[in-house]
Amino acid sequence: MARMVFDEWAGSYADRMHDIRRSAVRDLFAAASRSDVISLSGGMPEISQLPLDLVARAMAAAIEEEGVQALQYGVATGRIQTRKLVCELVRDFDIEARPENVIITSGAQQALDLLAKTFINPGDPIITEAPTYVGALQAFSQYQPEMHGIPLDDEGMRIDLLEEELDRLGTRKPKFIYTIPNFHNPAGVTMTLERRRRLVEISRERGILLIEDDPYGRLRYAGEPIACMRSMDENVVYLGTVSKVFAPGTRTGWIIAPVPILDKVNLCKQGTDLCGSTLDQVTVEHYFHDTPWRETNERLRQAYAERRQAMLDALEEFFPPEATWTRPDGGFFLWVTLPRYVDTNQMLPLALDQGVTYVPGAGCYPDGGGDSSMRLAFCYESPENIREAIRRLALVIEDRMELYRAFIKAGAIEE
Amino acid sequence: MARMVFDEWAGSYADRMHDIRRSAVRDLFAAASRSDVISLSGGMPEISQLPLDLVARAMAAAIEEEGVQALQYGVATGRIQTRKLVCELVRDFDIEARPENVIITSGAQQALDLLAKTFINPGDPIITEAPTYVGALQAFSQYQPEMHGIPLDDEGMRIDLLEEELDRLGTRKPKFIYTIPNFHNPAGVTMTLERRRRLVEISRERGILLIEDDPYGRLRYAGEPIACMRSMDENVVYLGTVSKVFAPGTRTGWIIAPVPILDKVNLCKQGTDLCGSTLDQVTVEHYFHDTPWRETNERLRQAYAERRQAMLDALEEFFPPEATWTRPDGGFFLWVTLPRYVDTNQMLPLALDQGVTYVPGAGCYPDGGGDSSMRLAFCYESPENIREAIRRLALVIEDRMELYRAFIKAGAIEE
Repeated sequence: MARMVFDEWAGSYADRMHDIRRSAVRDLFAAASRSDVISLSGGMPEISQLPLDLVARAMAAAIEEEGVQALQYGVATGRIQTRKLVCELVRDFDIEARPENVIITSGAQQALDLLAKTFINPGDPIITEAPTYVGALQAFSQYQPEMHGIPLDDEGMRIDLLEEELDRLGTRKPKFIYTIPNFHNPAGVTMTLERRRRLVEISRERGILLIEDDPYGRLRYAGEPIACMRSMDENVVYLGTVSKVFAPGTRTGWIIAPVPILDKVNLCKQGTDLCGSTLDQVTVEHYFHDTPWRETNERLRQAYAERRQAMLDALEEFFPPEATWTRPDGGFFLWVTLPRYVDTNQMLPLALDQGVTYVPGAGCYPDGGGDSSMRLAFCYESPENIREAIRRLALVIEDRMELYRAFIKAGAIEE
Repeated sequence: MARMVFDEWAGSYADRMHDIRRSAVRDLFAAASRSDVISLSGGMPEISQLPLDLVARAMAAAIEEEGVQALQYGVATGRIQTRKLVCELVRDFDIEARPENVIITSGAQQALDLLAKTFINPGDPIITEAPTYVGALQAFSQYQPEMHGIPLDDEGMRIDLLEEELDRLGTRKPKFIYTIPNFHNPAGVTMTLERRRRLVEISRERGILLIEDDPYGRLRYAGEPIACMRSMDENVVYLGTVSKVFAPGTRTGWIIAPVPILDKVNLCKQGTDLCGSTLDQVTVEHYFHDTPWRETNERLRQAYAERRQAMLDALEEFFPPEATWTRPDGGFFLWVTLPRYVDTNQMLPLALDQGVTYVPGAGCYPDGGGDSSMRLAFCYESPENIREAIRRLALVIEDRMELYRAFIKAGAIEE
């Protein structure tokens, strides 16, 4: 669809089309499928580790036992059986929820869209982390909010800076605060317990909705689990998904929220797609009820842990001393910061030439920044491929740095 | 979710939540599942006629042959295999389309949402038929357009009234004209070839996007097929779905449109749900490639034709002479008009007491009207149940009419 075509409707599109974000990640999909390219860009889970024979059997059971229901329209909130399953699953995180507090969404991405649709008028302030999940920026930007990014450090969102920003906004109360506390995408950091508690307090004190996005909660490779914020306060809106534990191809995510909010979200869901895929929901139910999913998750966890280690080792071995990176305790990503004169957007074509993709940092910022940073995904490639990709990427970076050092020496640019 | 709960976020919702439509159809789902209720409300296809054993086999094949792809993230546009399948399927309607002209959506409902998202600013005029599909009103109302309804007659949209309305709007050109030419939902009428040609001309002459929604195209029970408008002009945006031919539980619909429009729609799709269900798409591919779907469709067509006839016969037998109704050549619905002093919204609880549901007409109008009309679905219940439901409904109507006649006689209301 990149073909240039005269667009006779150019004057007809809604204003939001000027604000809507393109995703560098999505645009990289095509490149990433070239067989000589090692992808450190996409957050694709390792499907080949799933017990496909058991999945096939679960699906056959779904059709045999509930074929008519599995193929018929469902309700917008999602099947009661699926919502009950979600209530069971989140009990592992000390979340108490009833099915009426759950709506099933088409992946957690649709949860972001529906929440934005429910709350955002053009120009409304909202708070995200900076950097934040590029798909969240895409979802939110469709509703034209004023996005305020709060910087992260190794302990997660800088709560002191959040409070400063909220004070600055004064009576312009943000519609919500969006955070990814566990194994942040893209930053790879995890919010400390102390900051989580404080964030919940701030949300309560100031009456600002808190959205906790937790796609990677079951993929911890180091350290001890930290309580999620929804377990501290029922008013926190909690998002989950099967995408990283089972299969993103079954678009099954969820919102856990207070009933009045879900009533509004449900109205939006009806207008958006009537209902999610019943077939997906029945398949998910059977996967979690009929297969040893905890064992599978443990196997996936070990595979990802090994890949994370391979990436950390390779970074240590190959990357220049000027580069720094985060050391994630879980999830799929880590975040590399290069000297500020290296532009990771400009460098991407050179990396592609060398057969490596990554996500340039700038696209992950709600309001500018991140030009010399990048997100690296360790979830998708083998440890060997990861090492090779980091080796290649290090060469590209060294080249770039040499060029810039020459410019600096010549006085053409400032350090 | 109907429980009354204090809503502390009441002041936080987006303005669109005031305009968004509730669907009486969706609210009737709960009632319709009572075992003593015969549902003439929902447009649910007859899943039990599908060859479930073949569907189960198709799904098992999907996982066995393409498990890793079927469970992984896909691209926002939909699998190339699914888009090619759509191109093959629509050739039956003389539509020439290439895969780049197709985007797979989560049912045709998502197509409506994405097109509205792409084109509508709050206050923009759009044109629909009056009455029109209640889900289209839900989708469009989320983006706060000014909806202008064009009346229908037995030959479809009143093109003369459309031209008058466009003239009245003057320079305020509508963002699009939305029409359901075949076996209209809810009206049950079909647009004549002459009017289709004229509508395409108007769209061209005035530069207004034309959206042709065709979910029931393969379900004709009488008369000869009429050319679809997309076969007359490549600029017509055409919507289709497998919901009525295969299974709505696999949320698989499509938009066929010019490339520049799809490029924008694709951006919205990314923000809305990243991608549709790959599992659904693979299942749909296998259903159409590996099962004798044309035979199945023929069996479904005959079953629906029989139900339509049962409803027409029962209406003739039981309904009062003051009632009129349409005689659809296909699809799922017909439209009943009662004397204007009968309010079908007020009558619904009485019908429910008698164990019958229908869709009150008022909810199907973009800008008022339809208070004494109703949509009856003949797709879902057996011929026997349909006859019984119409008998019960006739009694409820007679009761209502008697009451009103007494009021009129007493001079309390005007005829």
